[in-house]
Amino acid sequence: MTVSTFDPGAVLAAVRERAPLVHCLTASVTENFVADALLAAGARPMMTNTAAEAPVMVGVADALLINLGTLSTDGAAAMEPTVAAARRQGLPWVLDPAAIGIAPVRTPLAHRLLELEPAVVRGNASEIQALAGTGAGGRGADSTTEADTVIADATRLADGPVVAVSGPVDVVTDGTAVFRVRAGHPMLTRVTGTGCTLGALTAACCAVADPLPAALTATLWLGLAGERAAEHARHPGTFRIALLDALAALTPADLTKGTQRCQ
Amino acid sequence: MTVSTFDPGAVLAAVRERAPLVHCLTASVTENFVADALLAAGARPMMTNTAAEAPVMVGVADALLINLGTLSTDGAAAMEPTVAAARRQGLPWVLDPAAIGIAPVRTPLAHRLLELEPAVVRGNASEIQALAGTGAGGRGADSTTEADTVIADATRLADGPVVAVSGPVDVVTDGTAVFRVRAGHPMLTRVTGTGCTLGALTAACCAVADPLPAALTATLWLGLAGERAAEHARHPGTFRIALLDALAALTPADLTKGTQRCQ
Amino acid sequence: MTVSTFDPGAVLAAVRERAPLVHCLTASVTENFVADALLAAGARPMMTNTAAEAPVMVGVADALLINLGTLSTDGAAAMEPTVAAARRQGLPWVLDPAAIGIAPVRTPLAHRLLELEPAVVRGNASEIQALAGTGAGGRGADSTTEADTVIADATRLADGPVVAVSGPVDVVTDGTAVFRVRAGHPMLTRVTGTGCTLGALTAACCAVADPLPAALTATLWLGLAGERAAEHARHPGTFRIALLDALAALTPADLTKGTQRCQ
Repeated sequence: MTVSTFDPGAVLAAVRERAPLVHCLTASVTENFVADALLAAGARPMMTNTAAEAPVMVGVADALLINLGTLSTDGAAAMEPTVAAARRQGLPWVLDPAAIGIAPVRTPLAHRLLELEPAVVRGNASEIQALAGTGAGGRGADSTTEADTVIADATRLADGPVVAVSGPVDVVTDGTAVFRVRAGHPMLTRVTGTGCTLGALTAACCAVADPLPAALTATLWLGLAGERAAEHARHPGTFRIALLDALAALTPADLTKGTQRCQ
Repeated sequence: MTVSTFDPGAVLAAVRERAPLVHCLTASVTENFVADALLAAGARPMMTNTAAEAPVMVGVADALLINLGTLSTDGAAAMEPTVAAARRQGLPWVLDPAAIGIAPVRTPLAHRLLELEPAVVRGNASEIQALAGTGAGGRGADSTTEADTVIADATRLADGPVVAVSGPVDVVTDGTAVFRVRAGHPMLTRVTGTGCTLGALTAACCAVADPLPAALTATLWLGLAGERAAEHARHPGTFRIALLDALAALTPADLTKGTQRCQ
Repeated sequence: MTVSTFDPGAVLAAVRERAPLVHCLTASVTENFVADALLAAGARPMMTNTAAEAPVMVGVADALLINLGTLSTDGAAAMEPTVAAARRQGLPWVLDPAAIGIAPVRTPLAHRLLELEPAVVRGNASEIQALAGTGAGGRGADSTTEADTVIADATRLADGPVVAVSGPVDVVTDGTAVFRVRAGHPMLTRVTGTGCTLGALTAACCAVADPLPAALTATLWLGLAGERAAEHARHPGTFRIALLDALAALTPADLTKGTQRCQ
C-alpha cells in the first residue's frame, strides 16, 4: 500500500455502514469513554471481560481489542482465552500494551500476547520499546520518548503485526513502509482515554479493512477529531465532549482530504 | 391501574422529595453515568458490589437494581445474596438481564434471579425473549427485534414482575394491561448507558410508587429527557451531557403532560 | 502555619510545574472523573489497582491516594501492600475512608490503614466520626452530619495525619490549628466523584507541599472551581464538564486571592 492507494474516507464509510461490534477487554478507568467513542464513530462496543464469558461473547464480535491498562486479576485471566477464541474464528485483534515496562503481570502478558498474531499493535514509544525489549517502559500511561525514535523497534516488531506508535507525530509501519501521520492536538493528552480510544477505533477499522489502512485511518480519524474539538474547546472538560462530537461529525470526505497528513 | 389514574408527575415529585438511595449492582462500563443520572433525577446512588459488603450495605437503601452488564466474577457472586437481603427487608428490586442469551454465566443467573420476585424486569426485546426462553438473545447490548414482537413473552413473564421492554416504542405490562410509551429519540442509542439508566431510574421510582406506575414513569422520564436533549444536541458527546441536564430539568408538570404518550 | 503564611497559589503553581504522578487506588464508579480531574488540574493519574502490580507501580509515583469507595475484592487486597511500598520510598499518601461505618470490609480496613501514617485523611463528617469511633457512618456516600460537629474527632485523629472534613463549610486541622474553608457550591453534591476528586487533588498537592497547606489548597481549589462552574451551568451534566474546565482554568492568582476564604 502507498499513500496514493490509501483512502481513509472509504474505511470510515465502511465502519459507519457495517457498524462493527468491537469486543473490548480494556482499562476500567476509560472503558466508558472508549464505548462512547466507538458509538460516536459508528461502531458498537461490547465490554464483557471475564474468562467465563468473554471467550464465548467474542463469537458475536467483528473485532477484538486487548488493552492492558488498569488490569484486574479477573480481566487478565480472560485475555489469552479470548484471543484464542477470536483467532479460531478469524477475527482481527488489536494489542494495546498499556503501561508495560516494570509492571510484573502485564509485561510478560504482553510478550505472550504478541506471539498470538495481533493484526495491529498500538502503543506509545515507551511501550513499543518495552515490547521490543529495548526499553524499560514509560511512566504510568505516559511515554518518555517520541515515536520517531522507535522506528527501528517498530519495524522489527512489525515483522508480524502492523505497529502504530502514538506521539505528537504518529508512526505507522507494516515492517516495510513507514508512514508518519501529522494530525492531532496537545489537548488529546489532557483528557484520559484517548490512547485507549485509538486502540478501539483501530480494531473497528480492522473489521472493515486490512491492518495497515485500518491503523492509519484510526490514527487520522482521532487526530482530525482532536483538531476539530480543539477549535471549540479551550479546556479539557469541554474538549472531551467536543471530541466525541467530532468523531461522529467527521465525514468520509474529511478523512479523504486528510490523506495529505500521512506520508 | 389505567392511564386515567396514572400520574407520572406525582411519581417524579416523590422521587425529588424523598431522594431514595438506590443500590446498584450494575455494569462497570456505565456505572458512572448511571450514578450521575440518579443524582440528576433527584435520587441517590450507592454502587458497592461485593458479596462481602453489598448484602450489608443494601440495608440502608430504598431500592435495588441488579444489572448483568459487564459482569465481573466478584460482582456476580454478590447478586443473589444482595437480593436475598433486600427481600428480607421488603425492598423493591429491579432486574436488568443485560446481554443475556449465549453468555454462560449471566444467562442462568438471570433465570435464577427471576425466581426471586423482582418488582420490575427491564430489558430490550432480545433480552426479554431470552429470559422467556423463546429467543437466543441479542448481539451484545443490542436487540435484534422490536418490543412489540415480544408482548406475549412479556405478558407471560409479567405473571410475577412488571415487565418493561425498551425499543423505539417501549412496552410495559403487568401481565394484564399492556401500555405502549411513545417517547424517546434515536440519539438515546448513540450513547452508552441509557438502558442501564432506565433500570436505575425504574428502581428509584419503585422506592416511591407501585411497580407498574414506577416502570411507566421511568420510561416516560428518560424518553422525554432524550427528546429534550436532542433539541439542544446534534452529536453524541453533547447529547450525553444534555440528557443529564434534562433528567434534572424536567418538572412534575412535564411528566404529567406526557401521560398522553402512554397508551 | 497560619493563614498569613499560606499561599495556595504557589501550591497550585507547583502542581502545574511538576505534574506529579498520583497513583490512585480508588472507587471504580468515579475513577474516570478523578483521572480527568487530575489531568485538568495539571497532575497525572495512574490507576493500577491489583496487589500483583500496584505495589511495584507506585515506585514511579509522586503521591498515593487510597479511597475505599466501590471496594472490589481485588482492589482491597492491594491497598495495604501498596501503602507499605509507598512508605518505604517516603511518598506522601492520602486516605479517603469512603462510606465506612456499617460496611464489614472497609471499616476495619480503614482503621488498619489509619495506623500506616497517612499524610492526610479526607472524608465527610460521618466518615470522620466512624473513623474516630464516635459514629456509625453516613448513608452510602452521604454524610448525615456537618463538618463543624466533628472538630473534636478530627482534631484527635489529626494527632497523626492532617484531617480534612468536607461539607458546606470544610474543616481542615493538623490537630492544633483548625481552619474553615468557605468555598464551594451545592451543585458539587449533584454530581458523583467530587469527594473522590478532592482526595486525589489533595494527594497531588501533597507531592509538592506539606500536608496542611496541601489539604487546604486542594479544598480551596475544588471549592472555587465549583463556584466558577456553577456560574456557567444550571444543571448537573453541564456542571460536571464546567467543573473540569474550571479546575484547569483557575490560576495561581485566583487561588492566592481565595486565601481569604480560609480562616
